[in-house]
Amino acid sequence: MAGSIFGTIFRISTWGESHGVGVGVVVDGCPAGLSLCEEEIQHYLNRRKPGQSKFSTPRKEEDLVEILSGVFEGKTTGTPIAMMVQNKTQQSKDYSEIAKYYRPGHADFTFDQKYGFRDYRGGGRSSGRETIARVAAGAVAQKLLESLGIKVTAYTLKIGSAAVDRERFSIEEAKKNPLCMPDALAAKKAAEFLEDCIKRQDSAGGIIECVIQGIPAGIGEPVFEKLDANLAKAVLSIGAVKGFEIGDGFAAAGSVGSQNNDAFYMQEKEIKKKTNHAGGVLGGISDGSEIVFRAAVKPTPSIAKEQRTVNRNGEEISISVKGRHDPIIVPRAVVVVESMAAITLVDALFVGMTSRLDQIQRFFRA
Amino acid sequence: MAGSIFGTIFRISTWGESHGVGVGVVVDGCPAGLSLCEEEIQHYLNRRKPGQSKFSTPRKEEDLVEILSGVFEGKTTGTPIAMMVQNKTQQSKDYSEIAKYYRPGHADFTFDQKYGFRDYRGGGRSSGRETIARVAAGAVAQKLLESLGIKVTAYTLKIGSAAVDRERFSIEEAKKNPLCMPDALAAKKAAEFLEDCIKRQDSAGGIIECVIQGIPAGIGEPVFEKLDANLAKAVLSIGAVKGFEIGDGFAAAGSVGSQNNDAFYMQEKEIKKKTNHAGGVLGGISDGSEIVFRAAVKPTPSIAKEQRTVNRNGEEISISVKGRHDPIIVPRAVVVVESMAAITLVDALFVGMTSRLDQIQRFFRA
Amino acid sequence: MAGSIFGTIFRISTWGESHGVGVGVVVDGCPAGLSLCEEEIQHYLNRRKPGQSKFSTPRKEEDLVEILSGVFEGKTTGTPIAMMVQNKTQQSKDYSEIAKYYRPGHADFTFDQKYGFRDYRGGGRSSGRETIARVAAGAVAQKLLESLGIKVTAYTLKIGSAAVDRERFSIEEAKKNPLCMPDALAAKKAAEFLEDCIKRQDSAGGIIECVIQGIPAGIGEPVFEKLDANLAKAVLSIGAVKGFEIGDGFAAAGSVGSQNNDAFYMQEKEIKKKTNHAGGVLGGISDGSEIVFRAAVKPTPSIAKEQRTVNRNGEEISISVKGRHDPIIVPRAVVVVESMAAITLVDALFVGMTSRLDQIQRFFRA
Amino acid sequence: MAGSIFGTIFRISTWGESHGVGVGVVVDGCPAGLSLCEEEIQHYLNRRKPGQSKFSTPRKEEDLVEILSGVFEGKTTGTPIAMMVQNKTQQSKDYSEIAKYYRPGHADFTFDQKYGFRDYRGGGRSSGRETIARVAAGAVAQKLLESLGIKVTAYTLKIGSAAVDRERFSIEEAKKNPLCMPDALAAKKAAEFLEDCIKRQDSAGGIIECVIQGIPAGIGEPVFEKLDANLAKAVLSIGAVKGFEIGDGFAAAGSVGSQNNDAFYMQEKEIKKKTNHAGGVLGGISDGSEIVFRAAVKPTPSIAKEQRTVNRNGEEISISVKGRHDPIIVPRAVVVVESMAAITLVDALFVGMTSRLDQIQRFFRA
Repeated sequence: MAGSIFGTIFRISTWGESHGVGVGVVVDGCPAGLSLCEEEIQHYLNRRKPGQSKFSTPRKEEDLVEILSGVFEGKTTGTPIAMMVQNKTQQSKDYSEIAKYYRPGHADFTFDQKYGFRDYRGGGRSSGRETIARVAAGAVAQKLLESLGIKVTAYTLKIGSAAVDRERFSIEEAKKNPLCMPDALAAKKAAEFLEDCIKRQDSAGGIIECVIQGIPAGIGEPVFEKLDANLAKAVLSIGAVKGFEIGDGFAAAGSVGSQNNDAFYMQEKEIKKKTNHAGGVLGGISDGSEIVFRAAVKPTPSIAKEQRTVNRNGEEISISVKGRHDPIIVPRAVVVVESMAAITLVDALFVGMTSRLDQIQRFFRA
Repeated sequence: MAGSIFGTIFRISTWGESHGVGVGVVVDGCPAGLSLCEEEIQHYLNRRKPGQSKFSTPRKEEDLVEILSGVFEGKTTGTPIAMMVQNKTQQSKDYSEIAKYYRPGHADFTFDQKYGFRDYRGGGRSSGRETIARVAAGAVAQKLLESLGIKVTAYTLKIGSAAVDRERFSIEEAKKNPLCMPDALAAKKAAEFLEDCIKRQDSAGGIIECVIQGIPAGIGEPVFEKLDANLAKAVLSIGAVKGFEIGDGFAAAGSVGSQNNDAFYMQEKEIKKKTNHAGGVLGGISDGSEIVFRAAVKPTPSIAKEQRTVNRNGEEISISVKGRHDPIIVPRAVVVVESMAAITLVDALFVGMTSRLDQIQRFFRA
Repeated sequence: MAGSIFGTIFRISTWGESHGVGVGVVVDGCPAGLSLCEEEIQHYLNRRKPGQSKFSTPRKEEDLVEILSGVFEGKTTGTPIAMMVQNKTQQSKDYSEIAKYYRPGHADFTFDQKYGFRDYRGGGRSSGRETIARVAAGAVAQKLLESLGIKVTAYTLKIGSAAVDRERFSIEEAKKNPLCMPDALAAKKAAEFLEDCIKRQDSAGGIIECVIQGIPAGIGEPVFEKLDANLAKAVLSIGAVKGFEIGDGFAAAGSVGSQNNDAFYMQEKEIKKKTNHAGGVLGGISDGSEIVFRAAVKPTPSIAKEQRTVNRNGEEISISVKGRHDPIIVPRAVVVVESMAAITLVDALFVGMTSRLDQIQRFFRA
Repeated sequence: MAGSIFGTIFRISTWGESHGVGVGVVVDGCPAGLSLCEEEIQHYLNRRKPGQSKFSTPRKEEDLVEILSGVFEGKTTGTPIAMMVQNKTQQSKDYSEIAKYYRPGHADFTFDQKYGFRDYRGGGRSSGRETIARVAAGAVAQKLLESLGIKVTAYTLKIGSAAVDRERFSIEEAKKNPLCMPDALAAKKAAEFLEDCIKRQDSAGGIIECVIQGIPAGIGEPVFEKLDANLAKAVLSIGAVKGFEIGDGFAAAGSVGSQNNDAFYMQEKEIKKKTNHAGGVLGGISDGSEIVFRAAVKPTPSIAKEQRTVNRNGEEISISVKGRHDPIIVPRAVVVVESMAAITLVDALFVGMTSRLDQIQRFFRA
């Protein structure tokens, strides 16, 4: 089935493998009149680019984006925006060995089961390079959100046992350190933990948090197209994500009603919530406060440490995954989570424009 | 937007409010030839029926299902199966007061923001009664899965601090105790905790776990229609759910690659995994092992304990939610989680039938 | 596959067979705030009710609609509107014979081929009664369009060789005569032709024309969701329709560019077209003039006249279709064409609200 | 809204303008294991290439296709197939003038109305070059259909008053003459008519017929996803098409039931139809006979003959469309109609695989 298309009204269609001609996306449903250039998209792609610290793969990937359609004289035309990043530095020889066996924690086995064979070069379609397309589309979504006063910000919340202390939280700090942690001390501890991981030829995972500011109340469609439900799907569709929670999430399960309910109060004639255990969503609809969610990212499956597995001939073997792999993908995944959230939000805002007849009448009268 | 339709090929369309004529669902895309009768669906509905223990609302709801179409001489015809449960015992007067204010933790405020007004009787469309439609459709999905050798089983994993001990795990036990916990001791502790909650006019949440057995490898569509991504959406679309995780989930984020990777090995000429940290899904595609996921359910927001809120006139007030409310909805939500998982799986199985040309050729040649 | 759901944002889900419990529809995506009652819907249903003249089946079908959800205190709430018409007067014995053979021109054979068997009572799901659901949903769509100043009007253009003369065109006349023809003389000739058909135990078809007034320019989404493409699908999805054309349609194929192009001119500072060969759509987008399309309806396949066919045992036989059948369905199909056009238009208007960033910004700022 | 995506399970996403970087398509949902190379796709693109006779634009367009993803070692992998044709010879200066006014019969005015402005170079997204993407995707669909024994063949049926004579019908002839007419005499008459059109600085339209052979009975989903309804949408979504009919189409509207019904009979233990007035579809489901439909194509709107129109300043002016335009697009549109039919059929075949439980059980047991 067509599984590489996402969205209802604002829709993206992605393509590409790690070792093919390139990776790309068609953004269909972007309104006309948004100013857009390659530099703006490149800015987001650079945030996921590898080789920026010792905690990411030393592979050199320029990942320069080209806009192929949908923009005329610096503005979107309302027609599909096709974007492409060419694969320039992939070295096929690095990956030739993995054609023969199934790497634990990877999709090698399931792709073979599903399709009968696979493009084994660097993971093919299941490679992390696929997320380039998400980030390019996410950049367009972010620009749209900005034009509506909405801001999506993700960062690393936890690596190993090193967690961000809310008291020391500084979003500026997250932009400075290579681990995208908004707490310099936590970042230092996390770095030590990761160095130890690298020494042990092992890898690590972590938790990414994402905050959405400026979203109006009323976004999300009961009962199946709830805003949190669609965010969950968007985030779980990212390769290494194994969990999603909104607001207090799993902690809410251990709370009691009197603690977990957020009391409403009046602030300058506006209805506000005193707390935000709900994470900005009630009944699947945004309530006007910040939306806060978290994603659990598993450790990079590619490790140099010896592992047991089987090959395509059904023989049990020991392997050590060679190549230039990220000891942790969390910092590079931060912008991917942001992108998927932004894409989901734009679509939710657009499909939510028809909730009330009076607003529709006003729209068409204008 | 149309938010009450779910699925791609196997699609459900639900309708109904807590105090209208009834609640119903149209199941569109059910194949012809499945034997189906009202008793089989009723069996599932009875599992979510209230009033079965002191831990659920004492409201009497018969919730008898009628099949209105799509079944002829005891078999599905391939055309839409409409089912309806009439609302018989709803007492409108119980709820008249809540029209005026916004109950904390409920969707009263967000519905007003979205639609301009709301059907305030018993929560209207945001009522838990909406899940009747999910369970009726889920019963059809469960029958389809059974006919393909697939079994979906959910149960309560944790309430308060009372967690199921894997060593004492017994699925038979889950069918016996009113809390659906597969561990008698944990159920006992949970019951004590809940009795204390009731005394304090408070409510509790919990964690539901769901296991899927017999699903073949190869189900799930990269890159956006991953099986776990769609399960996450399905489960988060249930009213009180605030988190989803598959396999080790959030714990995986704190693990290292060498521990989290599941080693492959050979068992009687079949490729198996020694462990299942992945929860049965690699790269968004089922790997042939059990699928295991968990849902975090928040405490029931309706509590008798006094809470602060505001009314529609923008005045701050204190309220105590009257009426017959569940001190915990987790046990009644178990079958709802099962239903959404079953619906998602049927759709995933159906859309996954076109992955390989040789299989398609065989299908049309037969 | 789920084939009984139509639309993207304004979506209908229909169900029901001719001899089951009833026929119904769930309208999902209707905005909140539309005043709606059963009488308004009944008005449209009465237009397709049989037994109103000698040119339709003498079957008595009350076809009373019930609203089951989505309306509160006389207004739509934004949640799904479920509507049902019970099957009250269907006589199963009338149809028992047709279980055994395939009626020419009917879907008996193809349903058996597709589903392995069929609900043979009165055509089951392929019965004309299925259109009740379309008309009920169409009534809601018509009310929405009215509230936006848009009017959809269909009528019979031709029956046999009796065609409406544009010079004598009177929409008031169409409301008076039982054939819905906007030309009394043509209606008289058509009636004579039909009486002759009835005598010869035969049936007739005809052409329905539909005019849409008040639709703003800019509706329709290039390149696949063109307004005319979606109208074509909507109209061809009606049982007996075999052709669709917009504007000059098939006649345009025989024209030349200088004749077929509609010249633009200025009328009171507005850009207008001098002619409307295009039928109100350029490049799949409404151009602000009237939309005009036509549907070709085949003769009723059920005829008393002897026909050759085969039975389920593969034997060739002669049959004469018994029962109370319409000698022509065109007059009753007029409101069905109108309904499908209205449903399609509402969806097109809604999905078209995100074409321009400046309009979106204005919407969310309001 | 996202209007450049077509299909449910086999889905195409197209992009590109006449004077941008290029035109492309992503085919998502193509099963793994189909052998595919650029030459095979090029073969179809060459059929729509201009400059092949005096009856098409003398523009030189190489239109060489590149496959960017989804094919590995000569076979499709089941992941998205991205294809691109670069725009190489477009001369922007030819079109600069049309930025200022609205060409009659073109989408200039409606694009401006919808999006606020337009890419005016050569029609931008509304250019006929957009169909390159349809033909590239259609080539993939045709290969899939061939592998299932299904053949889609379109040809020109009529130009001006020159119509193919069924007695002289020869599909081989259609491949030889530049007008794609399966009747040499009709082609000769049509050529004379077109030469006269060119002399008069005018343009012509025509009718394309399409025949589908080898499609099994049972394809098409009642009640909205009928096979003919989806073919109608697919064909009407092509720029210049103004009408669609299946089987006898508009002629059926003038027939009587006893003539229009196709009698069933037995032929070597198979149920066949003696005639095919229905065009291979009963109740929206294929009946196993040939599917036959026709599309009405309007005359090329770009003509050198003087026309009246208005410019963007609201002034009435006379224009003569300069540039290298097709006096008729029908012959080049033949392969576009074929492509859209093929894409629609593949999708219909795929979504139709879940009609019967016994077939599904057999599929998953295999």
